Amino acid sequence: MDKHNYHQLTRTFLRLSRFSHLASIASWDMFAMMPPGGSAARGEALAELSVLRHQILTDKQVGEWIANARQEDLDDIEQANLREIERHYQEAALLPESLVEAQSLAGSKCEHAWRTQRPANDWTGFSANLKEVVKLAREEANLRAAAKGCSPYDALLDKFEPDMTSARLDELFGEVKSWLPDLLKKAVAKQEQQALIAPQGPFPIADQRELGLQAMKELGFDFNGGRLDVSAHPFCGGVPEDVRITTRYDENELLSALFGVVHETGHARYEQNLPRSWPGQPIALARSTAIHESQSLFFEMQLGRSEAFLRRLQPAIIERFGMQPAFEEHNFVAWNQRVKPGYIRVDADEVSYPAHVILRYEIERALIDGEIEVDDIPGLWNEKMQAWLGLSTEGNYRNGCMQDIHWTDGGFGYFPSYTLGAMYAAQLFHAARTALPGLDEAIAAGDLTALFDWLRQNIWQHGSRFSTEQLIQNATGEALNADYFHQHLIRRYL
Amino acid sequence: MDKHNYHQLTRTFLRLSRFSHLASIASWDMFAMMPPGGSAARGEALAELSVLRHQILTDKQVGEWIANARQEDLDDIEQANLREIERHYQEAALLPESLVEAQSLAGSKCEHAWRTQRPANDWTGFSANLKEVVKLAREEANLRAAAKGCSPYDALLDKFEPDMTSARLDELFGEVKSWLPDLLKKAVAKQEQQALIAPQGPFPIADQRELGLQAMKELGFDFNGGRLDVSAHPFCGGVPEDVRITTRYDENELLSALFGVVHETGHARYEQNLPRSWPGQPIALARSTAIHESQSLFFEMQLGRSEAFLRRLQPAIIERFGMQPAFEEHNFVAWNQRVKPGYIRVDADEVSYPAHVILRYEIERALIDGEIEVDDIPGLWNEKMQAWLGLSTEGNYRNGCMQDIHWTDGGFGYFPSYTLGAMYAAQLFHAARTALPGLDEAIAAGDLTALFDWLRQNIWQHGSRFSTEQLIQNATGEALNADYFHQHLIRRYL
Ligand SMILES: [Zn+2]
Ligand SMILES: [Zn+2]
Repeated sequence: MDKHNYHQLTRTFLRLSRFSHLASIASWDMFAMMPPGGSAARGEALAELSVLRHQILTDKQVGEWIANARQEDLDDIEQANLREIERHYQEAALLPESLVEAQSLAGSKCEHAWRTQRPANDWTGFSANLKEVVKLAREEANLRAAAKGCSPYDALLDKFEPDMTSARLDELFGEVKSWLPDLLKKAVAKQEQQALIAPQGPFPIADQRELGLQAMKELGFDFNGGRLDVSAHPFCGGVPEDVRITTRYDENELLSALFGVVHETGHARYEQNLPRSWPGQPIALARSTAIHESQSLFFEMQLGRSEAFLRRLQPAIIERFGMQPAFEEHNFVAWNQRVKPGYIRVDADEVSYPAHVILRYEIERALIDGEIEVDDIPGLWNEKMQAWLGLSTEGNYRNGCMQDIHWTDGGFGYFPSYTLGAMYAAQLFHAARTALPGLDEAIAAGDLTALFDWLRQNIWQHGSRFSTEQLIQNATGEALNADYFHQHLIRRYL
Repeated sequence: MDKHNYHQLTRTFLRLSRFSHLASIASWDMFAMMPPGGSAARGEALAELSVLRHQILTDKQVGEWIANARQEDLDDIEQANLREIERHYQEAALLPESLVEAQSLAGSKCEHAWRTQRPANDWTGFSANLKEVVKLAREEANLRAAAKGCSPYDALLDKFEPDMTSARLDELFGEVKSWLPDLLKKAVAKQEQQALIAPQGPFPIADQRELGLQAMKELGFDFNGGRLDVSAHPFCGGVPEDVRITTRYDENELLSALFGVVHETGHARYEQNLPRSWPGQPIALARSTAIHESQSLFFEMQLGRSEAFLRRLQPAIIERFGMQPAFEEHNFVAWNQRVKPGYIRVDADEVSYPAHVILRYEIERALIDGEIEVDDIPGLWNEKMQAWLGLSTEGNYRNGCMQDIHWTDGGFGYFPSYTLGAMYAAQLFHAARTALPGLDEAIAAGDLTALFDWLRQNIWQHGSRFSTEQLIQNATGEALNADYFHQHLIRRYL
């Protein structure tokens, strides 16, 4: 039996992946290279390409090919690819073009205004735009929910984390809520006993860049297929064959740029090691946002801030920047593992980070499911920040509910990925340590080959072949278990 | 009467220009940023986009809209735009897709192999590939010639220089041939009387870059809409709203990178000052390759290597790199105006440059018109180099007929643009000097505003509104006249 319909689909998705390649590079350029004057023309060019990709993907022929391909004699790989193809198709085809366009306009407007409204602490201005974004996101969520037979919020969650539900999140985050406040208090109290010395700059940016490149090299980044550049917000972009990561530098802050690079290198190695046997096919893409984040947090938190890795990093820092009291070994390790609850999510340490995420998850779920309105956000935010971290955000929108970009263009359902990623990372690191005796000694000696081979074999090389659940089950022998994250925090911080 | 057909065309060309934007940025990236591993995927992505653009442009509806639009009530601008639209359509629609594809494959193959064959001096290997490229170029030329009713070579020439013919080139280049050998001999003899001191490096690359940026600034480059980067071969790319120029640096060679930047800044300012009132329309594009080159040579040769400009540049160089004997004013000016006939076109001074171009023109025209074959090229090259510059290229293919990239992917008809550009530049500079009394003093004082305003008003702002002939007639009061170039060379070099 021939696979005519399936092959029509693979040809179509190969073509789409080529257009997506150009969109990725042009977007990277927009953030890392483009002068301001190019902005309008670039926006129009990317929008035109996006319309084209949407048209190709949602052509009704694609739906017919999918229906027919299901009857064809496909092997395991092809079936998995067809499953992913269908997911992409459904995701795009479910929404009327008018809604997609309205969302894009409202999102751009809200995001653009937010850039000045946030520094001005202008909640009134911002909330007016956000209401429109939320209204459209609810429309989207309701359409998706009706098709999938789930709650509106779950339908948005599914875009980032296929098969994840808010019921499961409530369990997982519920566990975290049961132990985190106490753990956080103890970690802070323990650290208060030791006076830490902060590194003293300036650290010349050219040297920071060299240090970052050196770290990328040790972490196995393939420079034949990628670059390091600068952007206002660090990210990992490009395409698997040519991965572009960015960081930002501050002459007085050595370690934030460096750990930014380590984090993005985790994302990058996942991309660089995705399977190449199925060019342009959805099965060859990264599994999900949470699995992606698990790789960056594996690099940044599990590996990068481990005592073994920090002890190896310390002489390299001294060699490049000279000795100073902050670089004394004990202080250097402790400084990079310090816990410092604060207002800002992106500056948070790994112990307080889940508080920021769970707070946002609870608010956005209630918002999308229609239990609260935009006007309720600041009050809830303040209440939850008080409860979690003892910090008031009353009237401080800028460092409260206006701090993130995610909601401005309607990215509801994304936040849980950060903490899911941290959980997956802890579980994966535990499994790797079990599989690889002497791992800590190898890390201290700078020999990361076995660790990366383990990640390649268990995560990277599979792309989207398996569901997230199956992938984690295969890699660790069990389903997602938040206890590994808990144990990790206890071991490192108590 | 409504202009339905015309508006369908402008919408289509606006859409095409957005795809072309993405192609330009991705191509710039390929040469200035991309790591080698990204090459295959990028090539495929760009090819896919190129197929799409070809399909949109050659859709038979476009042909019908053009035919119908001719009956619509169009104003001058719209008529000029329609003329350009038709030119682009014809150029693309005349060739069967199979030929376009075969050319693209043969060109890539020949160009790719050339990169290693040239250093290996491997004419046998190269000529095998070139024969296929020439065969296909002749097919293209014959198809175009039949449609236009001209010779095959003229049909290719028309792609780069609309309305230019080999009969006219023979006249223009014939004039040059009548005076250039003697002028070259005299210029060399005159310069042999003075011993010049070469600048001594190293000149740190970071400082060279700063100097280039400073020159771009003085030359009016708009950094809000453009960048300077590095690539193996300097070029001007990007889009009018975001012009990307490149240069290459050699620690021991200060002035070649700098004048590369000055040259590309000429191209860039043309692009940056093209009309913005007709977004995405062909009428808003640069007039032709020769006019484009006239702007870069206006900047590099007419302005940049003039004594007035060099005298102004000299203190800036001393300030940045310190004094040395080569930077003494008289030596500095003379060094930047030295004439040094050699094998390599891209290294040629402005006096010997036309020899390189005319030689190539005569060979490629005979080749495309079927008067000679690929195997005849090395002999003819050697003969003409001996005659023009007294240099033998026998057996030296690398520095002879294998030195350029143009023929490798079938770019026949391009070479004349370089010398046409030099002629237009000389004629334009003469007209500007006539229109602007005190121009040399203004240049020496660094006040270039009036000069650039003149270029903007006479060339840049018109895009492709007028034919090249009309544009030059309007700007200078006469048709192209090679005598201005002759007079310029006499004044500067004798
Ligand atoms: Zn991340
Ligand atoms: Zn040029």
